[in-house]
Amino acid sequence: MIKVIVLGSGAAIPTKSRNCASIAIQYNGEILLFDCGEGTQRQLIKAGKSIMKITKIFITHLHGDHIFGIPGLFHSMSLMHREKPIDVYGPKGVQKFIDFITSEENFFHKTFDINVHEIEGEKATVCETDMYRVEALKVDHSIPTYAYAFIERDRPGKFLVSKAIELGIPRGKLWGKLQRGKAVKLSDGRVITPDMVLGPPRRGKKIVYTGDTRFTEALIDFAKEADLLIHDSTFDESLSEKAREYFHSTCTEAAEIAKRANVKKLMLIHVSNRYEKNPGILVEQAKKIFENTILAKDLMVIELK
Amino acid sequence: MIKVIVLGSGAAIPTKSRNCASIAIQYNGEILLFDCGEGTQRQLIKAGKSIMKITKIFITHLHGDHIFGIPGLFHSMSLMHREKPIDVYGPKGVQKFIDFITSEENFFHKTFDINVHEIEGEKATVCETDMYRVEALKVDHSIPTYAYAFIERDRPGKFLVSKAIELGIPRGKLWGKLQRGKAVKLSDGRVITPDMVLGPPRRGKKIVYTGDTRFTEALIDFAKEADLLIHDSTFDESLSEKAREYFHSTCTEAAEIAKRANVKKLMLIHVSNRYEKNPGILVEQAKKIFENTILAKDLMVIELK
Repeated sequence: MIKVIVLGSGAAIPTKSRNCASIAIQYNGEILLFDCGEGTQRQLIKAGKSIMKITKIFITHLHGDHIFGIPGLFHSMSLMHREKPIDVYGPKGVQKFIDFITSEENFFHKTFDINVHEIEGEKATVCETDMYRVEALKVDHSIPTYAYAFIERDRPGKFLVSKAIELGIPRGKLWGKLQRGKAVKLSDGRVITPDMVLGPPRRGKKIVYTGDTRFTEALIDFAKEADLLIHDSTFDESLSEKAREYFHSTCTEAAEIAKRANVKKLMLIHVSNRYEKNPGILVEQAKKIFENTILAKDLMVIELK
Repeated sequence: MIKVIVLGSGAAIPTKSRNCASIAIQYNGEILLFDCGEGTQRQLIKAGKSIMKITKIFITHLHGDHIFGIPGLFHSMSLMHREKPIDVYGPKGVQKFIDFITSEENFFHKTFDINVHEIEGEKATVCETDMYRVEALKVDHSIPTYAYAFIERDRPGKFLVSKAIELGIPRGKLWGKLQRGKAVKLSDGRVITPDMVLGPPRRGKKIVYTGDTRFTEALIDFAKEADLLIHDSTFDESLSEKAREYFHSTCTEAAEIAKRANVKKLMLIHVSNRYEKNPGILVEQAKKIFENTILAKDLMVIELK
């Protein structure tokens, strides 16, 4: 199961109810962080998760509200004697920022390696494991900014117990091998291949986080068929000119992307502090275009099974 | 009236209930910040105060949990188009930190001047106004660290209305002059001096914040007769060796300073995350030595009238 935890749903200035930008994806024992605005470590603690489980951090861009939580996070990890290296991905400039905050022994004494990967170009696969990959796409903001797609690999189909029994395969090690996609030979000489006892392959989940961006058609293809699209929605539709001027999106522009990309669910995020008292307007407007829209709230958890 | 607002009562690693270090003193339209750990700006917003009212920031030392809230605070102030300069006081190194975070246009575009005052030596008066002064004292921590004393100037005594009437001074401008400490001449030729209509001068309030420190006798004189002493209390008395090793104080050491300095009230602060579930032990132990002890809590407000 994949858990998406909203750590910060606000825009540049935090509010009583919304922290600065950060999303966590919890998957298979890892926590992947997307953006790390000021206060992110405490939000994760409030969500009941250990900051030590963070393995990778993906930074959309270098604006302070997306990176100023990194120093404190690394400070705490060091006080907790972290030894495991951490990977940080982001546009050019991330290395310089991390170099500075870790160069001064006065700030804190770093206890682990930080591998920084600066992204270049319009589109790239920035990391790959046996279980998932993360892709980056340059979007349309005032400084170089990347959206990210977390794409789980397709998994083998479900193990069909009734089929295994029907075929007379003894319960135990052989079942495990078949589940892991390996053929087995029975004592009577028959060879059983995985396709004989597994259901159809299960499509991996896809989650897209846009970071800060204007409406950009490039996101339609990037977010295609995503299970969850987390899109910049700084303004409501009446402020579309402001959105353009400040390189952000309106809630209806986010919905337009969601509709054309045929995603399953849209989450509106990066909510301006002007909506502190009436955030509902954003989701109301978006729903006219894309029905399955929700508004991000701090510490909200979305489970993708 | 002076309001002391606890913005962060925790130690190096924040917890669900305690943010990193910061204390605000609200006085006469200004907010003075003492330390600015990560999350300070949001704590101030939660306290219902405007970050734009901050006029001066006093940093005890350069450990991350005392300074990593500065970048985000200045970011937000810039987005709110602050033009008024701000003063920052602290040990050597504060300038370099602020230079770095404001040097990169990518992080944010600074809209106001930051006047940094690096403190040297063992003791200094670091700022003075008509209403108060702030003094710094070097304490005993692992890196150069200053405690601060906010000392309000003594104020003229209360205006005694009954005396003024008794002396036949006409209500109006003359009363105002006398209240401001000026002599006046009545139409019948009599000269009235302020001492004739004012009560005894009122002693200014004194608030001392130690920052991170081991038990140090120098604080006894520095905190003498303070109305409020806010003292490092990272550990309980059973961990006094750990306190020495990590250059912090125990709650009982804090109480010992409070008693010997004859302060009015002691607030224990910088509470280690190990006491998240049982912080009461700190105040229990301290009260055996100094009765008027309280434990800091985030967003607690102390009014000094």
